[in-house]
Amino acid sequence: MPIYNAPIQDMKFILNDVFNAADFWQKNEQLAHVDSDTVNMILEEMSKFAKNTLLPINRSGDEEAAQYLGEGKVKTPTGFKAAFDEYAQGGWIGLGGDPNHGGQGMPKMVTMLAEEMVFTANQSFALYPNLSGGACMCIYNAGSEEQKQTYLEKIYSGEWTGTMCLTEPHAGTDLGIIKTKAVPNEDGSYSITGTKIFITAGEHDLADNIIHLVLAKTPDAPAGSKGISLFIVPKFHVNADGSLGERNAVSCGSIEHKMGIKASATCVMNFDGAKGFMVGAENTGLASMFIMMNYERLTMGLQGIGGAELAYQNATAYTLDRIQGRADSGIQEPNKAADPIVFHADVRRMLLNAKTISEASRCFAMYVAKELDTNKYTDDAAARKAADDRVALLTPVAKAFLTDRGLEASIDAQQCFGGHGYIREWGMEQIVRDTRISQIYEGTNGIQSLDLLGRKVVKNGGAFVTTYVQEMRDFANNMNADHAIKQAILTSADKLEDLTKAVVAAAAVNKDEINGCAVDYLQAFGYVSFAYMFGLMVEAANGKEGDFYANKAKLADYYVGRMLPRLDAHIAMVKATSQPITAFDRDYFAATIA
Amino acid sequence: MPIYNAPIQDMKFILNDVFNAADFWQKNEQLAHVDSDTVNMILEEMSKFAKNTLLPINRSGDEEAAQYLGEGKVKTPTGFKAAFDEYAQGGWIGLGGDPNHGGQGMPKMVTMLAEEMVFTANQSFALYPNLSGGACMCIYNAGSEEQKQTYLEKIYSGEWTGTMCLTEPHAGTDLGIIKTKAVPNEDGSYSITGTKIFITAGEHDLADNIIHLVLAKTPDAPAGSKGISLFIVPKFHVNADGSLGERNAVSCGSIEHKMGIKASATCVMNFDGAKGFMVGAENTGLASMFIMMNYERLTMGLQGIGGAELAYQNATAYTLDRIQGRADSGIQEPNKAADPIVFHADVRRMLLNAKTISEASRCFAMYVAKELDTNKYTDDAAARKAADDRVALLTPVAKAFLTDRGLEASIDAQQCFGGHGYIREWGMEQIVRDTRISQIYEGTNGIQSLDLLGRKVVKNGGAFVTTYVQEMRDFANNMNADHAIKQAILTSADKLEDLTKAVVAAAAVNKDEINGCAVDYLQAFGYVSFAYMFGLMVEAANGKEGDFYANKAKLADYYVGRMLPRLDAHIAMVKATSQPITAFDRDYFAATIA
Repeated sequence: MPIYNAPIQDMKFILNDVFNAADFWQKNEQLAHVDSDTVNMILEEMSKFAKNTLLPINRSGDEEAAQYLGEGKVKTPTGFKAAFDEYAQGGWIGLGGDPNHGGQGMPKMVTMLAEEMVFTANQSFALYPNLSGGACMCIYNAGSEEQKQTYLEKIYSGEWTGTMCLTEPHAGTDLGIIKTKAVPNEDGSYSITGTKIFITAGEHDLADNIIHLVLAKTPDAPAGSKGISLFIVPKFHVNADGSLGERNAVSCGSIEHKMGIKASATCVMNFDGAKGFMVGAENTGLASMFIMMNYERLTMGLQGIGGAELAYQNATAYTLDRIQGRADSGIQEPNKAADPIVFHADVRRMLLNAKTISEASRCFAMYVAKELDTNKYTDDAAARKAADDRVALLTPVAKAFLTDRGLEASIDAQQCFGGHGYIREWGMEQIVRDTRISQIYEGTNGIQSLDLLGRKVVKNGGAFVTTYVQEMRDFANNMNADHAIKQAILTSADKLEDLTKAVVAAAAVNKDEINGCAVDYLQAFGYVSFAYMFGLMVEAANGKEGDFYANKAKLADYYVGRMLPRLDAHIAMVKATSQPITAFDRDYFAATIA
Repeated sequence: MPIYNAPIQDMKFILNDVFNAADFWQKNEQLAHVDSDTVNMILEEMSKFAKNTLLPINRSGDEEAAQYLGEGKVKTPTGFKAAFDEYAQGGWIGLGGDPNHGGQGMPKMVTMLAEEMVFTANQSFALYPNLSGGACMCIYNAGSEEQKQTYLEKIYSGEWTGTMCLTEPHAGTDLGIIKTKAVPNEDGSYSITGTKIFITAGEHDLADNIIHLVLAKTPDAPAGSKGISLFIVPKFHVNADGSLGERNAVSCGSIEHKMGIKASATCVMNFDGAKGFMVGAENTGLASMFIMMNYERLTMGLQGIGGAELAYQNATAYTLDRIQGRADSGIQEPNKAADPIVFHADVRRMLLNAKTISEASRCFAMYVAKELDTNKYTDDAAARKAADDRVALLTPVAKAFLTDRGLEASIDAQQCFGGHGYIREWGMEQIVRDTRISQIYEGTNGIQSLDLLGRKVVKNGGAFVTTYVQEMRDFANNMNADHAIKQAILTSADKLEDLTKAVVAAAAVNKDEINGCAVDYLQAFGYVSFAYMFGLMVEAANGKEGDFYANKAKLADYYVGRMLPRLDAHIAMVKATSQPITAFDRDYFAATIA
C-alpha cells in the first residue's frame, strides 16, 4: 500500500518561519479572520482526508478509470462520489472562495497547501473540485451580481460543479481561431454551438448540475483573440428560485483514453444551440480569465509538487526496506543477507533529488501565493502593482519549472524501485503517468516559457527581472546564516541579470530568438529562483534548534553542489542563440521522414 | 496511423562512410561472406517488415496486452504469432547466429541496424526474439557441442524460443543472494527449484518449446556471486532425436501488469524440481553470461534509439500538419488560419533534440558494435584485447546514456503534440511508457554507471579512458573538415581526462565517491562521446555533395551549441563530490516519511 504523510512540519515552517504568515494576515484587514490555529486545523484535517480518503482510491481509480456509459453519461471510479461528498461537506471547494457567497475566504497561501495535499494523494480527484474553483473565480472576477448569486454558493457547496471550455479540436494554444459560435437570442441569452475538447470534468456523476464556462465568438466578433467572449452554459437550466429546470443542449460525446489521470473524465463536449449567458463584456473573454489563469497555473505547479512528494515518500519507504548489495562504506546490517538500498549513495542521490525538488518547489509556490494574496488583499496600490508584476513574472515559472521538476522527481523515485517501479501494482509508474500531464495542459511548458521570455521579460526590457534580482541581492547581502547559499544566490542573480540583458538585446535583432531560447531561459530562471528559495529557508532555519532546521542547511548544500550547476548549461544554451535551430528549414524536417 | 520510414540513408552512411564497413569485412576472414549488396538487402527487407508487419500491431498490442489465461498459459496479442512466424521464416532470429548451427553469421554492425528497426516499430515484439538471441549466445559461448547441436538451430529457426532467468523476488541487482537451488541427479542432470520473476517471454504461444537459461546454486556452492551456475531448463524435454518429450516441471505462475511494453509477457516462472542441464563449469554461471551481457546491453541502447526515432518521426509528421499560431519570422502559409507548428523555433528545438539523439546514438552504437565485431572476428590478439577493453568501457555508456536520451527524446516528441500527446490513440504516450523500461532492466542505469566508474574506470586508474581520449584527440587533430566540432572534441577530451583523474583520486580516499558520482560521470562521458560521434559524422560527410551531408554539419552545430553545454553541469556535479549526499544518514530519510 502506498503511503502519504503530509509534510506538515515543512508546510508550517514555510508558511510561518519563511513567509511570516501571521504577520501578513494581521497587516491586511480582509484577512483578519485568518489565524494560526485555524490554519493548523485546516492542514491537519486535510492531511487526514488526503491520507485516509483520497490515497486509497488513487490506484483503484487509475485501474477502473472514468467510464463513458453512452448517451452522454460518465461514471467516475468507485469511491469518487463519496470522497467528493466528504470534500464538499468539509467546505474544501470554497476554501478560498468569496465569504459573501459561502466561501471560506482563505488566502492562496493556505489553499495552496490544501491543494498540494489533494494533488499528492490523488491527482485525478484533485481536478474535479479544481475546475469548480476556476469556474467560480471567473464568475467572481467578471460575472454580474446575479450570476454570483446564482452560481457561486451552489458550486462552493459541491451541489454543482464547474468547467472551463476553451480548447477545440483545431485550436489549443491558439485560441484566436476557435469556431464555437454564440448567437444572441431575444431574451439577452445566447445560443452556443460548437465542439470543445479536453474538458476536464465536463460530465460526471458527482453533482446535480455542471456549469460550463465557455469561450465562443459572437457573430460580428473581430478575428483572433480580441473577438472572444465568455459564457456560462449550465447543463441544466436554473430556475429563478435556484432549482433545476430542463436539460440544456450541451452533452458529452465521449471521453479521452489517456496516459494517466485516468480517473479524471476528460470530455468532448458538444454544444448544440445551448443557451448561454455572457460573463463580463463582449469580446473580453480572454481578459476575464486572466486572474483565474494565474491561480490555475500556480495550481498546476502544485500538481508537480504533489507528484514529487508522493514519489519521494514511497521511494524512501521502499529503499529503507529493500535489501540488495552491501554499502560501500561497510556492512550496515550484518544480520541481513544485504543492506537496505538507502545506504547506497546513488540511491540517496535520487531520493535527495526528489526531496530537494519538493521542498524548493513548495517554497517557491508559497512565494508566488504570497504575491497573489498581496495583490488581492492589500490596500497599498504600489504594493499591489509590485505584487501583480511579480506574479506576472513568476507564474509561468511556477507552472513550468515545478511540473518539469515534478516529472523528474517522479522518474527518479520510480528508478529507486528497479524493475518493481515499472509494475503497476507498486503505484510508482502511475505517478509518472499522472504527473506528465501537468507539463502539457493549462498552456504547455513551452508556451509558459514563451509567456515568460516574450511577454514578461523582453516586452518590458527586463524590468521585472531587475527588481526580482535586486530583491535577491538585498536578501543575500543581509543574510545572517553563514552558508554557501549566500554566495550562490549572489552569483546566480548576476548570471540571471546578465542572461536577461543578452536575450533582450538578441531578441531586438532576431524575431526567432525568444521562441528558440525560451525553454532554456525559463529553466535557468527556475534554478536561480530555487537558489533564492533555499536561501530563504536556510535563513529562516538559522539559529533554530533541531534536526529539521539543520537538515534545511544540508539540503541547501546538496542543491548548491548537485543541482544548481545545471544553471550554467541552460545559460550557455541560451547564449548559443536560436541560430542552430533556425538553420533548419521546414523542408529539412519533411525530408527526414520521407 | 503512426508512421515509420527506417532511416536507411543514415544507417548506410554510418556503416559505410563513417565506419568503412566493407573495408572491415574484407580484413577479417570470418566476415568474407558479408558484402554491401547483402547488407543493403537486409536493411531494405527489415525496413519493410518493420513498417508493414510490426508497426501496425504496435498500438493494438499495447491495448490488448499479453494475457495470462490461467494454468500456466499466456496469450500474445493478435498478430504477434503471425509476425513472429514471418520473422522466423525470414531468418531474422539467427541473423547474427553461428552459421554452423543455422545462423546467418552477420556481424553486430549489421544486426544492430536490424534490431534498431524492430525496436523502433514495436518494442514489445522485439523482446521475444531478442531473448532467444541472448539464450543462444549463452549456449554458443559456454555450452557443450551437444547442447549447441540440440538447441541452437531450433531457436534460430523460431521453432523454439529462449529466456534468461536471473531475477528473483528478493534478488535483482544483487544476484549473489539468489535462492534457486540446483540439486544433482544421478544421470548428470540437476533438479531446479525456485521462483524467478521478470522473465521476458517466459511463457507465450509463439513457439513449440521454450528453453530457459537459469541461474541457480548447487548445494555446496560458495556464498555470493562466485557460487552461481547456469542451467538449461527446457519447457518440454527434448528427446535424443530432437522431438519433444514430456512437460518439464517449470511453469508460468502469472504475468506482470506494467507501465509499458504490455504486449511483452513478463512472467513469474516457478521451477518445481525441473530437470536442468549445467552449461559450462560449476560456479561459472555469471561469467558464462558476460559476453552475452555486452551484446544485450548494447541492444538495450538500441531500444533507446528506437524510442527516439519513432517519436521523432511521428512528431515531425504532426508538426508539419498541425496549424497553430503564426511564425515569429512572419506568416508562412497565408492561405491557412495559422502556420504549421514546425515553424515555431521551440517546436523545432524539440524535434532537433530528438533527431540529434537519434543520430548520435546510432553512430555510438555502431562504434561499439564495431569494437564487438573486432573482438570477435579479428585474428590480431592485440587488436582483440584493445577492442575488448573498449567494449568494457563503452557498454555501460551505450546502455544507460542511449536509453536516458531515448526517454528524453520520446518526451520531447510527445510534448510537440500538446494535449494530443497525452491521448492514447496518438501513440506518443506509448513510446514514452515503452521506452522507460530500457532505463530499468538489464541492469538499471544506476548500475551501469557504477559498472563504468567503478570497474571500468577507477579499478584500472583510468587507463581505458586514457586510450579513448587519445583516440579522440588524434582523430580531431587530423580532421579535414573545418567545423566547430573539432575544437569541441578536443576540449571535451581534456575535460573527460581531467574529470577522470579527479574522480580516481577522490575514490582513493572515499569509498562512497564512486556510488555518489557515478551517474553524473556517465552522463558526462556520454556527452563527450556524442561530440566525438558528431566529429566522425562531420568528417565522413565532409566534401560530399547533397543536403544529407550538409545537414550532418548543421546538426553538429546544434549539438555543440544546444546540447553539449550540459557536459559542464555534470562535471561540476561530480566535482561537488559525494559529500552533499552522504551528509544525510539513514535516519534522516526515515524521519521524513514518519
